[in-house]
Amino acid sequence: MRIIVFGLGAIGGVVAAKLGLAGHSVVAIARGTQLQAVRRSGLTLLSPQGTETTTFPVYADPKEVIFNNDDMILLAMKGQDTAQALFQLKAAGVVEQPIFCFQNGVANERTALRFFRNVYGVTVMLPADFERPGEVAAYCIPKIGIFDIGRYPAGVDAAVEHLCEVLNSCGFVANARSDVMNSKYRKLLANLENIIETAFSDKQQQADLYRKVRAEAEGVLTAAGIDWDKSEAEARNQMIMTAIPGRDRIGSSTLQSVVRGTGSLETSYLNGEIVLLGRLHNIETPYNSALCHLSEKLADGRLAPKSSEITSLLQNRTARQG
Amino acid sequence: MRIIVFGLGAIGGVVAAKLGLAGHSVVAIARGTQLQAVRRSGLTLLSPQGTETTTFPVYADPKEVIFNNDDMILLAMKGQDTAQALFQLKAAGVVEQPIFCFQNGVANERTALRFFRNVYGVTVMLPADFERPGEVAAYCIPKIGIFDIGRYPAGVDAAVEHLCEVLNSCGFVANARSDVMNSKYRKLLANLENIIETAFSDKQQQADLYRKVRAEAEGVLTAAGIDWDKSEAEARNQMIMTAIPGRDRIGSSTLQSVVRGTGSLETSYLNGEIVLLGRLHNIETPYNSALCHLSEKLADGRLAPKSSEITSLLQNRTARQG
Repeated sequence: MRIIVFGLGAIGGVVAAKLGLAGHSVVAIARGTQLQAVRRSGLTLLSPQGTETTTFPVYADPKEVIFNNDDMILLAMKGQDTAQALFQLKAAGVVEQPIFCFQNGVANERTALRFFRNVYGVTVMLPADFERPGEVAAYCIPKIGIFDIGRYPAGVDAAVEHLCEVLNSCGFVANARSDVMNSKYRKLLANLENIIETAFSDKQQQADLYRKVRAEAEGVLTAAGIDWDKSEAEARNQMIMTAIPGRDRIGSSTLQSVVRGTGSLETSYLNGEIVLLGRLHNIETPYNSALCHLSEKLADGRLAPKSSEITSLLQNRTARQG
Repeated sequence: MRIIVFGLGAIGGVVAAKLGLAGHSVVAIARGTQLQAVRRSGLTLLSPQGTETTTFPVYADPKEVIFNNDDMILLAMKGQDTAQALFQLKAAGVVEQPIFCFQNGVANERTALRFFRNVYGVTVMLPADFERPGEVAAYCIPKIGIFDIGRYPAGVDAAVEHLCEVLNSCGFVANARSDVMNSKYRKLLANLENIIETAFSDKQQQADLYRKVRAEAEGVLTAAGIDWDKSEAEARNQMIMTAIPGRDRIGSSTLQSVVRGTGSLETSYLNGEIVLLGRLHNIETPYNSALCHLSEKLADGRLAPKSSEITSLLQNRTARQG
C-alpha cells in the first residue's frame, strides 16, 4: 500500500515526511519550487526534536503516477485548488481509491464526492508551516498532530481504520469518527480566526473581534441545521506547542499564504462558508463578509499583514450595508 | 447598462448576438479561436430566418473590463469552468453586480453565491450550436429560445425583471420565476439524455435507456427532498425547431463538446449531480454512474460518439458493482 500525498505545503509536507521517515511508501504530487527542491534534495522536517530529511518520488501531475488499487490518496492542497486536482486524478485513472481530504473548510468533501465514490473527511490539528522550498516545520510534542478521520458524509470503514493505524504508528494521534463533519465544523469555527490573526496585530482586538465573528457563525450554522462538536478537541494535552531553536512560527495557514505571496487566500472556504450559508438561509453576516473583503485586499497586496484597524472594518461594514 | 457575456459558446454566443443586433450594449469575454475570430470579424448568427453579423468588444479576461455598477454579468461557460471564471471576476473588482447563471446543471449558483451576493439562476431552453469560430447557430422560430430567470436560492427582484424585459424585446421569451431552481431541476432531468444521445446511435435504445436513467434520477431527487417542475415548460409552442438551409444541427451541448474535441465534458454536472446526491443519501445510481464513466471515455477519445452498445453499459455496471 502506498500513500499518495497530493500537495506538499505545511500539512501535506509534514504528513509525507513523517510517513516516509517511518518507512511507509510515500508518493507526492507537488508544484513549483517545492517540487524542484524535494526532487533534488528530499524533504526536511524541522521539529522541536530535531531535523530529519527523507526522500520519496515526487511528481508534477497525477498522470505521471501509475495508480494501484490499494493506493490511498491524501488531498492537502488549499480549497481553491481542489477541483483542478480532482480533474487531474480522474484523468489519471483513479476510480475506487479512497480520497482523504486533509484540508480546512468543509467544501472539499462534497466537491470530491461528485467525482469519486470513496471520499473521507479529515480534521487536521497540526501546527506546522512551510516557508522555504524543501523544508517544513512542525511545532508540537509529544504528538506532532491530531486527526479525526471518517467517511463522507458519514461512517467508518476499513480504509479509515487502516489510515488511522498508519498515522498512529508514526507520531500522530488519529481517531476514527463516524460523524467526522461535526468535527470539521468545529475546526471551521476555530479557523474563522485565521484571517483576523493575519489582518490585525493587537491581541485583545483580535480576541474581541473573533468572539463576534464566531457568534455570527454559530447563529448561521444553527439556522442551517448544521451541528458541530461542542466539546474541545480530544487529546489536546498530547499536543503542546514547543519552540524550534532558531525558528519563529509564522502562524496560521492564511498568514503563511500572505507571507509567501501566493495571492489567492483560503478565506473564501472559511469565513466565506459562513457568508454562503448566510446567503442561502437569509441571515446577514456582516462580520464574516467584511473579513472576506479584507482577505481580498491582503491577497492582492492592497493591505499589508497586521496593518488593519478594527474601526475601519466596522466603517467599511456600515458603508456596505447602507 | 451593459450586459457582460462571459463565455461565447453556443448559448453565450446566441444571447450576445441577439442582444447586440437589437442595439443593446454587449461586452463579451471569450477564449482561444473564438476570441480571435470575434475580435477580427464579429459574431455571425445563423438562424432559420437568415444570417446576421454583429460586433462588440471582446476580451480574454475580466480584468481587461472596467466594470460599472449597473453592469449585468451572464455566465455562459460550462460548469467545470465556473469556479475559475468567478475568481477572475472577483479579481477584476466585481462586487455587487448581478451574476446570472445561463448554464445547465444546478451547481453553478451555489458556487457563485460563495463569492457574490447577487446570484441568479437561469433555465436555458435554446437549441443552438457552436462549431466554427466566429459563428453560432440557433434553430427555433418564432422565438429563438426561452429562459426562466430568478434570484438564487429564491425570489424575484428588479434585476430579474429588467433582464427579462431586455430579453423579451429581442426575440426570446423570458419568465421571471420566484422558484427558478424548480425549473432548473426539471431541465437537469431533461439534460440527463445528453450523454445518451452522444454515446449511442439507436433512437429506440436511447429512449429506453433514458426512461431508466430518469426514473433513477427522480428517485434520488425525491429522497434528497428536492422538488422540480412537473409540468412541461411553458410556451413550448412558441419555439419550433426549424432547419437552417445547408446546415445540420450537431445536437446537444455534450455532443458538441465531443465533436469540437474540448475534452472535459459537462456530464459531471448533469448525470454526475444525480450520482453525487445518490452518494449523499445512500442510494445506488448504477445507470447515471455508468453514463458518467462512459463520458470520461468519450472525453479522452477511448470511445467514439454514437459507438456504444447498451449491453456493454450494463455489463460494465454489473462488473463495477461486483
